[in-house]
Amino acid sequence: MTGQPELFLRKGAERRLRSGHLWVYSNEVDSARSPLASFSAGDCASVRASNGALLGSAYLEPNNLICARLYAPGRETDLPDTLHESLSTALAGRELAFERPFYRLVYGDSDLLPGLVVDRFDRYLVVQLNNAGIERYENAVVAALVDLLAPDGILLRADSRNRREQGLEDRIAVVHGEVPEQLALEENGVRFQAPVHAGQKTGWFYDHRLARARLAPYVAGRDVLDVYSYIGGWGIQAAAFGATAVCCLDSSAAALDGVEANARLNGLQDRVSTLQGNAAEAMEVLLEEGRRFDVVILDPPAFIQRKRDIKKGIKAYQRINGLGLKLLAPGGVLVSGSCSMHLTRADLLAAVQAAAVRAGRQVRLIEQGAQGADHPIHPAIPETEYLKALFFRVV
Amino acid sequence: MTGQPELFLRKGAERRLRSGHLWVYSNEVDSARSPLASFSAGDCASVRASNGALLGSAYLEPNNLICARLYAPGRETDLPDTLHESLSTALAGRELAFERPFYRLVYGDSDLLPGLVVDRFDRYLVVQLNNAGIERYENAVVAALVDLLAPDGILLRADSRNRREQGLEDRIAVVHGEVPEQLALEENGVRFQAPVHAGQKTGWFYDHRLARARLAPYVAGRDVLDVYSYIGGWGIQAAAFGATAVCCLDSSAAALDGVEANARLNGLQDRVSTLQGNAAEAMEVLLEEGRRFDVVILDPPAFIQRKRDIKKGIKAYQRINGLGLKLLAPGGVLVSGSCSMHLTRADLLAAVQAAAVRAGRQVRLIEQGAQGADHPIHPAIPETEYLKALFFRVV
Repeated sequence: MTGQPELFLRKGAERRLRSGHLWVYSNEVDSARSPLASFSAGDCASVRASNGALLGSAYLEPNNLICARLYAPGRETDLPDTLHESLSTALAGRELAFERPFYRLVYGDSDLLPGLVVDRFDRYLVVQLNNAGIERYENAVVAALVDLLAPDGILLRADSRNRREQGLEDRIAVVHGEVPEQLALEENGVRFQAPVHAGQKTGWFYDHRLARARLAPYVAGRDVLDVYSYIGGWGIQAAAFGATAVCCLDSSAAALDGVEANARLNGLQDRVSTLQGNAAEAMEVLLEEGRRFDVVILDPPAFIQRKRDIKKGIKAYQRINGLGLKLLAPGGVLVSGSCSMHLTRADLLAAVQAAAVRAGRQVRLIEQGAQGADHPIHPAIPETEYLKALFFRVV
Repeated sequence: MTGQPELFLRKGAERRLRSGHLWVYSNEVDSARSPLASFSAGDCASVRASNGALLGSAYLEPNNLICARLYAPGRETDLPDTLHESLSTALAGRELAFERPFYRLVYGDSDLLPGLVVDRFDRYLVVQLNNAGIERYENAVVAALVDLLAPDGILLRADSRNRREQGLEDRIAVVHGEVPEQLALEENGVRFQAPVHAGQKTGWFYDHRLARARLAPYVAGRDVLDVYSYIGGWGIQAAAFGATAVCCLDSSAAALDGVEANARLNGLQDRVSTLQGNAAEAMEVLLEEGRRFDVVILDPPAFIQRKRDIKKGIKAYQRINGLGLKLLAPGGVLVSGSCSMHLTRADLLAAVQAAAVRAGRQVRLIEQGAQGADHPIHPAIPETEYLKALFFRVV
């Protein structure tokens, strides 16, 4: 018993939480008994069914549609008091799955730490606080991370789109120890440097690790185009797995500098080239020049940020996948990624098939990549699944 | 032009074929112009839209709901004339993905060879003819396979459930060369002998290969229970990947003899034990005995054979997954497979989550296995996707 305030739900509204979900929507709250206006963002509360039964502890964001997020289902406790246990459980899950200390250590709701993301680069951590509720606990989170892992440095990357939409200010700061501009990491046996202060998101995308490992059989001895390459996560690994030549295409000169640095780091600079430009435009030019590749990798940013963008987004996926298919040599392989949570796996499959029909190509789906153990999916929360990597062969 | 008969579709019925699908349903045929009764099972025909446009060539099964299956979309040709090309394309796809000659060489519609399945065990092939249409071409198929691969032997395993439902007789026969009772194969670096004459289906299940490879991080140094083990595909690989002890559970004594032989083949007999019994009943007994495992693998036969069995089937999946979860030690991993085409990935996920809630366990989905390059999915034919392997961690 913590004596924390109580949030009562309307009759029947406890059902989703009982089946394992962790979110409360504002229209589910019994506002007569527990007015949302009486809470501030980050306040902890005991969430109770209309009959008074305890459902768990949540922090509140009274101005959001999702007005409460459970961090301790079935238990009554402050968030700070759960940090050590939740972080330890998360760490055990990663240590079970990964030999080396390079992974997403905390993945929000799935790790009972809503709003919190922590990427680990061995002795350094990069932390995202993605909403106002978890922001309140910055100091407690940092202290718990220091307690658990005694890292050399922790970088706060509080500059997500989600924050901006909530009116929260960007903040990038070293909040513990020291953090170099570039952090070393290893993925599938290949070495990288990630620009954690200035790069995209936390500086690196651990999520496609398993799919990248599956490049190996398809790229050995072949020409590869890596579109939206960022700093070469796919492309450098393709080269390391034996690709004859890899062209990394990105709109950012800084990202391509990263590609070159990462190629040198692995002694692969002779097989990796870079091309700066808008993805679709540059692919059109390659097509006109008659360039063809054995493998084309498309790992675009999320084209669908909001549910209402689905139709437009699907067209964008169709367009780039059509270009990718046209750039393939006969028998080639297309790796089509999507990190849009609102785009289902079936949607992406249909988009590629539509693009194939339009391009006069027949394709078969030969492998499917998904989130791994450092981006665990909560089976009751479909929103925790967002990643797809579909491998197609042109027949 | 082959001068083959024509099958005309009703107005608008060409749409699905134009988007890449390969099946014609009997209610889509213009029976006035091309009565189905004028065809016999296996007859080849040119399929045409109501305006006469060629959609492709198909063989017919006039008494089936799916009355025609395209083997040559967009082209007019006899089935025997396409065999060499389709088999070569299939072979090229497998040789791209796999270093060693152990794989499903032909996977029906996805390889434009509807009704045909061929599993390759190096110099031996096991062939399934799953309907009356393809059965007509047995000799041509065997001749084309001999031409392409010059195998030492071809075994016909024409004894599938699908055949029986169509009133076709079982037939198991060596149709080329000689085929030993047991055939050697290698999967993920582990050796097996498969009872191709007397075992389930073609004697081996290549489909879970990629998922089995992903056991490695989770089984090293741990106790594993392999339920519905058959001849040890999962269990022996778990032992080879470093599991301390593996218990293979199956109802078939012959299958468990296979487990023991395959354990010896890899020098793993000291770490692999067998348990004969009905899966659910034996798991209940293990539970009562207080046995717990770090990893439980459930790879049941298809509980859902027909669409109308979905509800009952989901309950069966819930039941065994609930038992599997209860048998897990804290922090354990459940590998939950399903080969029911009618059960979607989301259905299986929901079934496990329901079982977890009932068992008072919290689980996270940490990996997802799917069909690989030797069971290619046709993006326009959802029925070509059937396999799921979901890895859960109990938190």
